Amino acid sequence: MNKWQISEVVQKALSEDLPFEDLTSELLIEDNLYGEAYFLAKEDLVVCGIPVVEEVFQKVDGTVELSFKVKEGEEVSKGTKFGVARGKVKSLLKGERVALNFLQHLSGIATVVRRMQKKLSPYGITLLDTRKTLPGLKVLQKYAVRVGGGQNHRFSLSDGLLIKDNHIKACGGIEKVLEKLNRTPHYAAVEIEVKSLTELSLILECEANISAVLLDNFSQKDLEKALDMIKRSGKKVLVEVSGGVKEENLDRFLIPGIDYLSSGAITHSVKAVDISFKVDKVWKV
Amino acid sequence: MNKWQISEVVQKALSEDLPFEDLTSELLIEDNLYGEAYFLAKEDLVVCGIPVVEEVFQKVDGTVELSFKVKEGEEVSKGTKFGVARGKVKSLLKGERVALNFLQHLSGIATVVRRMQKKLSPYGITLLDTRKTLPGLKVLQKYAVRVGGGQNHRFSLSDGLLIKDNHIKACGGIEKVLEKLNRTPHYAAVEIEVKSLTELSLILECEANISAVLLDNFSQKDLEKALDMIKRSGKKVLVEVSGGVKEENLDRFLIPGIDYLSSGAITHSVKAVDISFKVDKVWKV
Amino acid sequence: MNKWQISEVVQKALSEDLPFEDLTSELLIEDNLYGEAYFLAKEDLVVCGIPVVEEVFQKVDGTVELSFKVKEGEEVSKGTKFGVARGKVKSLLKGERVALNFLQHLSGIATVVRRMQKKLSPYGITLLDTRKTLPGLKVLQKYAVRVGGGQNHRFSLSDGLLIKDNHIKACGGIEKVLEKLNRTPHYAAVEIEVKSLTELSLILECEANISAVLLDNFSQKDLEKALDMIKRSGKKVLVEVSGGVKEENLDRFLIPGIDYLSSGAITHSVKAVDISFKVDKVWKV
Amino acid sequence: MNKWQISEVVQKALSEDLPFEDLTSELLIEDNLYGEAYFLAKEDLVVCGIPVVEEVFQKVDGTVELSFKVKEGEEVSKGTKFGVARGKVKSLLKGERVALNFLQHLSGIATVVRRMQKKLSPYGITLLDTRKTLPGLKVLQKYAVRVGGGQNHRFSLSDGLLIKDNHIKACGGIEKVLEKLNRTPHYAAVEIEVKSLTELSLILECEANISAVLLDNFSQKDLEKALDMIKRSGKKVLVEVSGGVKEENLDRFLIPGIDYLSSGAITHSVKAVDISFKVDKVWKV
Amino acid sequence: MNKWQISEVVQKALSEDLPFEDLTSELLIEDNLYGEAYFLAKEDLVVCGIPVVEEVFQKVDGTVELSFKVKEGEEVSKGTKFGVARGKVKSLLKGERVALNFLQHLSGIATVVRRMQKKLSPYGITLLDTRKTLPGLKVLQKYAVRVGGGQNHRFSLSDGLLIKDNHIKACGGIEKVLEKLNRTPHYAAVEIEVKSLTELSLILECEANISAVLLDNFSQKDLEKALDMIKRSGKKVLVEVSGGVKEENLDRFLIPGIDYLSSGAITHSVKAVDISFKVDKVWKV
Amino acid sequence: MNKWQISEVVQKALSEDLPFEDLTSELLIEDNLYGEAYFLAKEDLVVCGIPVVEEVFQKVDGTVELSFKVKEGEEVSKGTKFGVARGKVKSLLKGERVALNFLQHLSGIATVVRRMQKKLSPYGITLLDTRKTLPGLKVLQKYAVRVGGGQNHRFSLSDGLLIKDNHIKACGGIEKVLEKLNRTPHYAAVEIEVKSLTELSLILECEANISAVLLDNFSQKDLEKALDMIKRSGKKVLVEVSGGVKEENLDRFLIPGIDYLSSGAITHSVKAVDISFKVDKVWKV
Repeated sequence: MNKWQISEVVQKALSEDLPFEDLTSELLIEDNLYGEAYFLAKEDLVVCGIPVVEEVFQKVDGTVELSFKVKEGEEVSKGTKFGVARGKVKSLLKGERVALNFLQHLSGIATVVRRMQKKLSPYGITLLDTRKTLPGLKVLQKYAVRVGGGQNHRFSLSDGLLIKDNHIKACGGIEKVLEKLNRTPHYAAVEIEVKSLTELSLILECEANISAVLLDNFSQKDLEKALDMIKRSGKKVLVEVSGGVKEENLDRFLIPGIDYLSSGAITHSVKAVDISFKVDKVWKV
Repeated sequence: MNKWQISEVVQKALSEDLPFEDLTSELLIEDNLYGEAYFLAKEDLVVCGIPVVEEVFQKVDGTVELSFKVKEGEEVSKGTKFGVARGKVKSLLKGERVALNFLQHLSGIATVVRRMQKKLSPYGITLLDTRKTLPGLKVLQKYAVRVGGGQNHRFSLSDGLLIKDNHIKACGGIEKVLEKLNRTPHYAAVEIEVKSLTELSLILECEANISAVLLDNFSQKDLEKALDMIKRSGKKVLVEVSGGVKEENLDRFLIPGIDYLSSGAITHSVKAVDISFKVDKVWKV
Repeated sequence: MNKWQISEVVQKALSEDLPFEDLTSELLIEDNLYGEAYFLAKEDLVVCGIPVVEEVFQKVDGTVELSFKVKEGEEVSKGTKFGVARGKVKSLLKGERVALNFLQHLSGIATVVRRMQKKLSPYGITLLDTRKTLPGLKVLQKYAVRVGGGQNHRFSLSDGLLIKDNHIKACGGIEKVLEKLNRTPHYAAVEIEVKSLTELSLILECEANISAVLLDNFSQKDLEKALDMIKRSGKKVLVEVSGGVKEENLDRFLIPGIDYLSSGAITHSVKAVDISFKVDKVWKV
Repeated sequence: MNKWQISEVVQKALSEDLPFEDLTSELLIEDNLYGEAYFLAKEDLVVCGIPVVEEVFQKVDGTVELSFKVKEGEEVSKGTKFGVARGKVKSLLKGERVALNFLQHLSGIATVVRRMQKKLSPYGITLLDTRKTLPGLKVLQKYAVRVGGGQNHRFSLSDGLLIKDNHIKACGGIEKVLEKLNRTPHYAAVEIEVKSLTELSLILECEANISAVLLDNFSQKDLEKALDMIKRSGKKVLVEVSGGVKEENLDRFLIPGIDYLSSGAITHSVKAVDISFKVDKVWKV
Repeated sequence: MNKWQISEVVQKALSEDLPFEDLTSELLIEDNLYGEAYFLAKEDLVVCGIPVVEEVFQKVDGTVELSFKVKEGEEVSKGTKFGVARGKVKSLLKGERVALNFLQHLSGIATVVRRMQKKLSPYGITLLDTRKTLPGLKVLQKYAVRVGGGQNHRFSLSDGLLIKDNHIKACGGIEKVLEKLNRTPHYAAVEIEVKSLTELSLILECEANISAVLLDNFSQKDLEKALDMIKRSGKKVLVEVSGGVKEENLDRFLIPGIDYLSSGAITHSVKAVDISFKVDKVWKV
Repeated sequence: MNKWQISEVVQKALSEDLPFEDLTSELLIEDNLYGEAYFLAKEDLVVCGIPVVEEVFQKVDGTVELSFKVKEGEEVSKGTKFGVARGKVKSLLKGERVALNFLQHLSGIATVVRRMQKKLSPYGITLLDTRKTLPGLKVLQKYAVRVGGGQNHRFSLSDGLLIKDNHIKACGGIEKVLEKLNRTPHYAAVEIEVKSLTELSLILECEANISAVLLDNFSQKDLEKALDMIKRSGKKVLVEVSGGVKEENLDRFLIPGIDYLSSGAITHSVKAVDISFKVDKVWKV
């Protein structure tokens, strides 16, 4: 993640949550009250989002000090106090929720990705994300996927050629698409989504330089047939599999021959992990 | 939702997904190819986000026409083609993913909230959201909660006084907090989070004008005791219950006497509903 | 005030006043000329806006040093040199006007509020601001009211329920309004504006939980009657009075029984206090 | 005023006043309630800000219709209903306060300027504004000065050379300044602030091409002497007078020979004029 | 180009050129003066930038009407009046310079690219741009290259893998780089810059999947040798040539076997074409 | 240049070039690889843009250290390594292109301006820029002109009165224009563009206070006649000459009596100078 991108997304988040003042802290907390609060993992998780949390407290009040006992991407077990914030109590409370909202979301992604990739690795499969990200959070979400151990598929429509069902439909069929592939930008590899074994065989026979096929929503049986067809064709093409992939059904996809498994769920249906931020000590200055 | 807020969040989302051009469409789709695509519900759902989808295509290409067969907030069943977009195929494909990312997320919220609220209504309980929202999406997420039939808790730290465990800890106990309540802004009601029956009894006995208590993470047994205490105290105070509330464990909370049930999960752990956007017909002009 | 909000408003102000370069300083002042300038109170005033002035010079040239002999909110008498800026003379002159524009406006608010609140305090009355603020300056203006010793009424339409004449008119009368009050958000207290003793009596008799009444534009005589009615009703309701309140006519409102006096004039018709910024010594480096 | 500048300042103002929803209207006003509200002058005033008001309602809800019976800059007398807004009542109420905040401030400026300029015109004097404007509102405030009938002094440090006391002090005296005037940009005229008759005589004798002198804070007597000196010198130089000029003390400055009278007060100490926005009729659709 | 991107860059340009008002037009041109002005090609050129010009006048004054006799990308010869603007004269003059600045720059790019591509086409060579674009104008410049008939190389560091001399140096030589190529994202093709025939032979012998080689700054003689080596190697690799390529030295590069010729000069050293905007008729309304 | 303006333009440039990550560096460069790279002048040039380069690396990664052996505006000869960057290699490579794009463009302007001004100085002529600048880069380009040794003409339409052919045409002739000059703002000097000797004679005879005439597109012969007419008229008016002025045809304009020579080409048709950024040493930490 680049520094100015973190700055922008944090500013937006703080503007939402503090359009004016923190009414409750203004009422209850004196200006000269300082304190310490810790981040507590309430389940096993992969920590992700430390640089974002730092920016949150930086923007709220440059004097809050943060120290983390773990590095970005480390696994911590339930009950671990993995970080501490120290400073004006008012500032701690102003930043608390926004910091946690980022941290729980990004760690949520990294944690699931880590578990899924661990299952996939023995099969030589790499977990990929998609463009099914939450608006405004794409850079952060894709970062969390990498922290979790997965890889990023293309970031946007502007990088990478991924020919999907709607393109094929609009072109009038996969044959029409294949005719146009001689005009691809030389710096982008071509990936084509296929919906059936028939489509797949057209691609395996074509002359165009195709980097990968995306087998989307294949049944278990057809998936195996497809992998076999690809192997036998001798065509050097990477195999990405997609279609409702999530942690719960991952076992269905543990098939050698798959290079990439892409999951929209890891970014569009994120389960936040449970992290608390607890004020521990306070003192007056 | 206010018009300019939709505009801002859509612009940000498009900037992410189209920093330059849509490489694939530039390669495959002619400028004079027009077409029609429909939105297809792939599961039962509550439609939410139509004004956002309209803004997406407005910003991509002002000439795309959208028509929806349902109103915002209506339930559609699996298999329903509930809307149609008509225009340049290139523009349809440029807007597709961003439009779906919004629509699937917001409908995801509205759908779950609708189901939960239906269960809660016979018990006189209202489902509330929290400040556990995704950064940058708070206005939209809280809108989706309302579309689903829930109510919004306060939007930000700047509206509403919600005294939570960290405030109480920092003040040195609930008694200290209660002493300060005579200085609350007159336009804001006071709600206090309580963690134990002891804390609750302090509040029920105090003189301060307290609008609501938030019973957080009470066991089933203590929750019932607490509701009973409140009832017997005769104190006019609304009861909000929270603590890991989600659709899966909702039955635990179907207890008369609860006024509000607040759930972070409905905004921090949203499951996107499945919606497709399918190009149907194309023609040249 | 939050750090990023000061940053935004200062950036906007500088962009207005320095779209390009400072033509006059470019012509007359050498780059290596350094100097010192002081802030001079040309009338008795309450200093307000120091953090904003610091941000102005920070954004113009990070090396300018500021030191103030007073704290934010302190009163200084006419003739006091209450602060000093030290650095490149060009930078001092670039920041001068923008810094003074903020300082004179905010101190203008704080000064009047201080004087008014001093008069009100013996009567147990608190001065409130309104939403009649200058566009883009609301966060700063409301901060200056607090520095002056007043309290803030709600910040925006999104926090606090204030039912005004237009709502009552649109609903078809105050009775219709009262029927709807059972659906208020639990975190917001209800305040109703009343225009006549008749309206007031309806409110005093109703069952709804009303936190405050706003007696708007009552004659002196009716105001006293109203206060008496409220007292006799035994209803626990705070009393806010408004209607052309300003320093010049404050004596009219020094009546026990009023809790809050709200004045639009303290933010919509601010008189800037007179502060000079005088270059004192210069030297070459 | 340029279209995009109005758009920016209105967006900022709405963001402040509606970070989320209008809680009160959400509670009380049905979505299908439409109505009409009028703008009522509660004192004699010059209307200024119509294009801004139009942008406010455009941004809140594009379907609100506005019609004004007067043109920008026309005078209306107390009691005149000079404009009408028609549309969803919720939208009328969302836009009301922000629209009035602009309208009352800008009309406040235009009204005072109109009155002052009328007094000045028989003496051949033109009222000027200064750079003592409110941060973020400079373009609007200077527009209101023109609508009122005054003229604008330079907009920013980047246009026009105005040599003030701090420049003279930093340069080491007016003689040093005069030596540097041969390097002025050819598109900018030079104006010099003078504080004494001695300084003035130096300027009247110098060879530099000086467009105007600014007689700042001269006593009545010295002012007359200065005007006489200028006349007798035969030097073709415009005379601007400043120093605490406001409507209340304008009579002091009605002296033939003054070309421009500049007043910071007309922008830094604006008194808002009193305008109401009253919902008149409502109907359901 | 996407609509919102044009909007952003035009807003920025207008903010620069009109921070306040157009002083000259305010002085000379009446508000009720309308007129017509034409765009005149003062040399042979390819028109590029019409949608940007439309946005300029839209933002200045929505009522100006534009009509162009040519389509984007058409060639017009010297002396052609290829477009007309009709509306308030003040608005025409406010938009004139900004509109021409865009139009002359973009048409400048398109014109040179058109001439260069025409020379290259018989040799089967495609002209490419680079990332050597002017800050803030990249989307527009790359659009102009396409309008001219060239192709775009990658837009940013985030799309496409282009391994340049600094990468090779930092990795410790081309062999080290080749070892890492098994981890490339599957949606991006690999291109490597080579500086010598030795480096080229390493690449031609390696097993990695390399889409293209970029022969940078090769002498005429070495370039021919390199092309020959590639041909004889039988390796299917595209050949991009770069190194000071500009219109003046294009003949040096007209060599069969080159697929792409990339030129930084077409975007970093653009010569604006000469276009006038002449007010033709005026009338009062 | 003001600090916040550099920050804005650099942020925009980085957003363009790094919407996501640097794919190539992510693939090839380890996080713990540090290094040093130098800036190499590949032709004789005037260095311009150092503060911008510093901001680029500051925004990419605050820990990169830059040191330059020359000051802004110094001339360096071909082959000079004039600056060094030290830090994470990934950060060096992320910032490289954006830094060079600024540096090559701004130094390109400064270099040409320096050469042109050196030729002009013996004739007492000053080189001026125009408003023919590249959108979004105006502040930077005009800064580079000053660094090169030229002077800035007005920045925008909002400063300086420059009456051009379109104004004269719209007013109905130069006589009509001259009648209106008594209403000019006193802080702005008037310059008029003249197209013929006849127009010139009207201006030389008029009474209006005109600061400068702009002789646009005069033939060599007419230019000499015009200069002679002006001299003989005794009218104190500065002479600016324009019309296709560029380095290549500068000799045509070396005529005593010209005060300013203005050239659009120095900003609208900039030739970037050739500067390399070479990674020199690398080490692991």
